[in-house]
Order: sequence, then structure tokens, then C-alpha cells
Amino acid sequence: MRRVCITGGAGFIGSTLADRLSTDGVQVVVVDDFSTGRHEFVAELLERPGTRLVEGDVLDQALLEEAIAGCDWVFHLQANADVRRGPDHPGRDLEQNTIATSTVLEAMRAVGTSRIAFSSTGSVYGEPNVFPTPEDAPFPLQSSLYGASKLAAEGMIGAYAHAYGFTGVVFRFVSILGERYTHGHVSDFFHALKADPTRLRVLGDGRQEKSYLYVQDCISAMCTAVAAHESDAGSTQVYNLGTDETIVVDESIAVITRHMGVSPTIEHTGGRRAWPGDSPLIHLDCARMRALGWAPKLTIEQSIIVTLDWLEANAYAMSERAGLR
Amino acid sequence: MRRVCITGGAGFIGSTLADRLSTDGVQVVVVDDFSTGRHEFVAELLERPGTRLVEGDVLDQALLEEAIAGCDWVFHLQANADVRRGPDHPGRDLEQNTIATSTVLEAMRAVGTSRIAFSSTGSVYGEPNVFPTPEDAPFPLQSSLYGASKLAAEGMIGAYAHAYGFTGVVFRFVSILGERYTHGHVSDFFHALKADPTRLRVLGDGRQEKSYLYVQDCISAMCTAVAAHESDAGSTQVYNLGTDETIVVDESIAVITRHMGVSPTIEHTGGRRAWPGDSPLIHLDCARMRALGWAPKLTIEQSIIVTLDWLEANAYAMSERAGLR
Repeated sequence: MRRVCITGGAGFIGSTLADRLSTDGVQVVVVDDFSTGRHEFVAELLERPGTRLVEGDVLDQALLEEAIAGCDWVFHLQANADVRRGPDHPGRDLEQNTIATSTVLEAMRAVGTSRIAFSSTGSVYGEPNVFPTPEDAPFPLQSSLYGASKLAAEGMIGAYAHAYGFTGVVFRFVSILGERYTHGHVSDFFHALKADPTRLRVLGDGRQEKSYLYVQDCISAMCTAVAAHESDAGSTQVYNLGTDETIVVDESIAVITRHMGVSPTIEHTGGRRAWPGDSPLIHLDCARMRALGWAPKLTIEQSIIVTLDWLEANAYAMSERAGLR
Repeated sequence: MRRVCITGGAGFIGSTLADRLSTDGVQVVVVDDFSTGRHEFVAELLERPGTRLVEGDVLDQALLEEAIAGCDWVFHLQANADVRRGPDHPGRDLEQNTIATSTVLEAMRAVGTSRIAFSSTGSVYGEPNVFPTPEDAPFPLQSSLYGASKLAAEGMIGAYAHAYGFTGVVFRFVSILGERYTHGHVSDFFHALKADPTRLRVLGDGRQEKSYLYVQDCISAMCTAVAAHESDAGSTQVYNLGTDETIVVDESIAVITRHMGVSPTIEHTGGRRAWPGDSPLIHLDCARMRALGWAPKLTIEQSIIVTLDWLEANAYAMSERAGLR
């Protein structure tokens, strides 16, 4: 791997991956439109020789072709990741996740780059009956527009492998935590408690069981898997990425309040699901990824604490929230 | 069920469904752009009171809203069904199947129609390891752009059920045969043998095992399933639709040549797959559909013969082939 393109490369996971690969001597082309990505995340990276920023949107195929030409791999991480608000904007997941992935694949085909690593999601399992859920769990029904749009993208990658000899590596992520994490569960609670440490409103009954993975563990897994499939033209591999533990929402709130030194009254809005399409239990079987020799280094509790410390030390991440559509 | 909208309602399956429902006293709104649908298929239907044609394209949401308003169900059958040529036009499946389904769902939401029956495909199973393949087979990898685009559409239907209380009934079809069948396997062989009865070129090794279902059996299944789920708001049901038998390509050729009274030299192009994304074995487990009391009436051989007789008697179907993009 000599040169890669990372879509969403100025985002939370993308910029962390870019830093890692660049440190390992890989030339990195970052594609980002900075709608949720941040210049702060790539400022240092872009000063290194061989690193390049292509500012623009992944629906712009010509721009993508220019960015991807000469790359060995595309890490397609750009996405609309606002799972919860999917039903308010049903076209957004289709456009930003499904159609965008098609545009990336077509740009790759146009310039002769045929290896793609893709950030999918455990949400593609809908509401599974098997826990921990393996990659070959029973064919699921989709329960969120977000999951459906990521599944659509996975499907196109599989088809491109068959039709055009592409190499696909698909990662089904749990929620990722760590430095540069700017939106989601932990961030919502952190900011709410900063604003009012006496009370905390929690969507759902607080008993949903979630999985989290530390971003550096996530990056290590991606790099390990991609290296393992460098020469697997015409195939698609799927890997769940998570920890072997889960945490109940109320427990993660206990970790957060303890670390922040606050004692709010917890108000549950009630209901098994926090929002339509929320999955009451996410626990992925990551044996396939572990079989490649990978293991996460941080527990869920440790990754929550790293995240809180980063949020505390980087107040600018607060302004990010205003930018969320 | 008092009034329904059928997208692709002037096509092979759509027009046959329209005839059946209309005969049963249901008002039918046919939406078709006649790119592959035929005026001949709906001429008689449209003379019946309560039947209406809306000519146009399923990417036109305003047109769809006008067609769907007041309907209890939408049967969304319009699709790009040219599986084999997917790799020549990778954007077409995305546009005609995935994006079109999103447009139909949005039109439904706009006018308050929330029940959708959808023609998906056994191709969503990719290359399965379980035969006959049940609806909850292990989570498949996609092997064709066509299958990927239909899976994407299934996923959106599932998400709309969760997010907006839609009722979804998804049918995963094998290949359908019968009156008004104008393109595919049997038609290709029929026309090739009409042009030259002395030789027949067969893509692949001739040993692919396929399933077929007679169109009237397919319509009966759809009507049975839809009636069973009339009141299941917020849920999606998936049904495989096929016969319990399969037929090897070379056997179906033997049925065809025998019925046509020709003895061509068969030339196999070789290879386990007839084209990239072709599935060497399709055999769906239809127990779930049979549990509703449905059973097909025609065998595969019988449905091939019905198809040949119809092709023989309807030379105009020949001209259809010229119109295939």
C-alpha cells in the first residue's frame, strides 16, 4: 500500500486513519466537504509531504476521479451517520450513503483503482435474533434508513467485486469512541450534563444494550484486514468490528457521571427503543476479525473515559454540534 | 382492497396482475412508461370502468403521487430487470430499482398510502450455500448489481415500516414464465431457434440449475400474501416465490427444442456462470408461502410450454426485443 484515498478523511474516524497510515509511510489523499469533518483534525497531517486534501463532495464523480487516480485503496468512510434523525430526512441516507458509494465505485472504475474498504454498520442486522451476531447471521430485515442505505452500499461493493474484479473489505462497526468523537450518545450526555449537571433526560428506558469500540482499536482492525486482503481481487470480505462486551445505557451514564463528578436525576422517556429504528441490543460476534490476530486494547469503560477527557480538553468540538444538520 | 396502483402495470407480470385484480372488482391504476411495457397488454383492461393509465416514469414523484392518491396498496413491479447486462450500465439498476423505489415510497408517504407489495428477486441471495434457500438464509454477499439494487429497495421498505408504520410485503421471485413473457432465457432460445433451427449457442456450461414459476401462480401467491397482511401496519413480510423443482439449462433446452420440433447442435460457451453475477443454482424454499395455503398449479415444464405457445402465437413480442436497451 503506497497511496490511499480516504473519503470523509477529515472526520472522526477518517482523520485518525489518515494519521495512522501517514505515520506508516503511506501517502494519503483526504476527500472531505467539511460538512461534519474538521480542519483541525487534518491540519497537522496536511503539512506532511505526500499528503493532499481534495475539498468537495463525494457525489462529484470528476472530483473523486482526480482524488483516487493513482491510489491502491479507497477507504470510503464519508457518510451521513445521523441514524436517529433518518426518518426526518429519508432522502439523505439514500443520497449520502447509497448514491455516494455508487459514485465512489464508478470513479474507481474510471481511474482503474479496484480496492475498497468500507465503513458499514452493525445496524445492517436490524433487530437480530442471534447474539453475539455473526457476519452470516440470518438474512435480516432492515429497521433503519441508515442501516438500509449502508446495506445497499455493501451490496454494490459485492456486485463490483463480481462484475469488475474489485477487492472489497466491508467493516460493520459498532459505535466508535475516542479522540475526535464529536457526536453520538456519549457526546450528547456530556454536553447535556455540562449545560445542566442536575438532571439528564435519556431517550428510551435506559436498558438498551450497546457496543462501543475505541477508535484506535478500530483503525488497527481496518489496517490488519486490509493488509490480509491486498491480493484478493474479485472477492468481498465482511468483518464485524466491536468488543466482546456490551454496556447498558444506564451503566454508560453511570460511567459518565462518575467521571464528570456530577449526580443528576435521570429521567427516562421510556420505551424499548430510543427512536424508531434504534436497536435495543447490539452485540457483534467479532471472531472473524480476531482470527486475523487483532484484539481491542481498551474496554468500553476505558474508551468512554478517553472520550470524555477529549471532549473536556477540546471545547471547540462543542461548536461542531451547531453544525449538525 | 378497493383501489391499487401497479407500477410497471403494462409489463409482463404487472399487466397480468392488473387483469386479475380488475376481474376481482378492484380498481386499478396502471403506471408505466412503456419502455418495456406494452399497450397491447393493457388495451382491454383500460376499457373497464374504474381502470386508469398514468403514463410516465417512476422517478417522477409528482406523477406517482397523482397515481397513488386514494389507493390502498401499491404493487411496485416496475424495474430494470436486465440482470445480465448490469455490468454494462452500472447506474441503471441503482436508478431504476433503488432510487425508483425510494421515489415510490416518498410518493406514498406524501399521499398517505402505506401498503406496498414489492417484486424483489431470488438474486438477493447471491450465491447461497443453503438449498432450497429460505428467506432467513445466512446473510448473503451480493453477486449482481441487479440483486444489490433489489436488496437496497427491500431495505428501504423495511425501514419505512419501522419509521412510518408502512406495511411491506416483499416477494423474492425466481424467473417467471407464461403469457406475455417477452425477454429472458426461454425467449432468447425461442427466437434464436426461429432464426436458425440448426444450432443453438448457450452461455455457460448448460448445467446451471434454475427455477421458474408460472405467471398465474405468481399472481395467485401475491394476492394471497397481500390479503394475509392487509392489517399488518409497521411490519415487513418476505416471501420466496418459486416451485419446489428446478431445471437444468440443458433440460429446459430439451423441452424447448422438442416442443418446437427442432434438433439444433448445442454449442456451450463454457463456464459455471453464464455471465458475471449469474447464479449457477437457484432453488428457493417456498414453505413460508405454502403455509398460507398457496401452491403452484403448473410444473416448470408446463410453464415453458405455455410460454412457447404464447411466443409462437404473438409474433409482435418479437419486435419487443428490438426495443430492449
